[in-house]
Amino acid sequence: MKILIVGANGLMGQAALKGLAHHDVVTASRSGSTCDHQVDITNTASIRALFEKVGQVDAVICAVGHCEYAPFVTMTDDQWRVTIESKLLGQINLVRVGCDYVADCGSFTLISGILNIKPVPEAIADATTSGAIDTFVRCVAHEMPRGIRINVVNPTVLEEAWDVYGAMMPGFEPVPGALVGKAFQRSVEGFISGEVLIVDA
Amino acid sequence: MKILIVGANGLMGQAALKGLAHHDVVTASRSGSTCDHQVDITNTASIRALFEKVGQVDAVICAVGHCEYAPFVTMTDDQWRVTIESKLLGQINLVRVGCDYVADCGSFTLISGILNIKPVPEAIADATTSGAIDTFVRCVAHEMPRGIRINVVNPTVLEEAWDVYGAMMPGFEPVPGALVGKAFQRSVEGFISGEVLIVDA
Repeated sequence: MKILIVGANGLMGQAALKGLAHHDVVTASRSGSTCDHQVDITNTASIRALFEKVGQVDAVICAVGHCEYAPFVTMTDDQWRVTIESKLLGQINLVRVGCDYVADCGSFTLISGILNIKPVPEAIADATTSGAIDTFVRCVAHEMPRGIRINVVNPTVLEEAWDVYGAMMPGFEPVPGALVGKAFQRSVEGFISGEVLIVDA
Repeated sequence: MKILIVGANGLMGQAALKGLAHHDVVTASRSGSTCDHQVDITNTASIRALFEKVGQVDAVICAVGHCEYAPFVTMTDDQWRVTIESKLLGQINLVRVGCDYVADCGSFTLISGILNIKPVPEAIADATTSGAIDTFVRCVAHEMPRGIRINVVNPTVLEEAWDVYGAMMPGFEPVPGALVGKAFQRSVEGFISGEVLIVDA
């Protein structure tokens, strides 16, 4: 299968790669460095330009979505907007545009995160957009064209990211990226659609 | 109790009024006609101006949130943005600004809708933002200041709105606005917080 991984440079993208490296993988990221292509998922023209270069694919993985973290009462308009533009609308954009380039019976796999199920302080924008993406996937699966499937991986914190997020997630058990990679593999190589693949310990 | 109902002109606002009419109710809406005040919830300055006029309240009800309806594959950037600005960010704005004007141990009650649980064609933006608001309420409840509570009413279609929405919701059983009013009353007069009050038949 030819698989496009957006956000391949990030730790979540690296986790997805662990589960999908045996395929023909094409990588993209915001900076483009060390990836095959550059893309800004907040810009539909940038997404379309990416797909025009990559051509038809069997699966699209989104492993990005920027979130701002702050206590709810001090969170600014800009922090909400940046998070929604990237993690929510950015991923929806990728599906909207990508529909024209995914093969019949291909698939999309998006990313959310466990904080909509296990909330912690300062993560309300992350939780809200994760809840939105989980809902989006459950509902839009019914109207994807040409047998295209869509799922979302909702992981807890990665072992590889524990040094960054561990302090804000006391009592959480991190999981190895390789386990999250298996969830991406299950979405891409399976027949499920409209599912939220929770990876938690 | 002094209760501010935003969106009091709409059918959902009228339903809320049915459950709360025995209180000191102050009403607001986008047009302001037949209401005490005018407000645009997509504009934080407009929300602050409203609260400056109304003063401290014991409860805030949001009964508005505009949604655009279309098949996912034809839905435009603008349709997504308008829906997110109103139904998602508009309601979050109301809580952010309103926190400064709600009495200790007061409450917010927001509105979502059953289509995130029972999806139908052309309602992906409604479903996605309803899922976001349900998640927002479940998670933000833990960090509301001064004992302030927050819940969301998630109703199915109203009997009073069946002529508008019935055709897109085959097999749904509408509920009377008075029953939805009781959910608002349960949120305002009870002690629950962080709950999604589903009203379905």
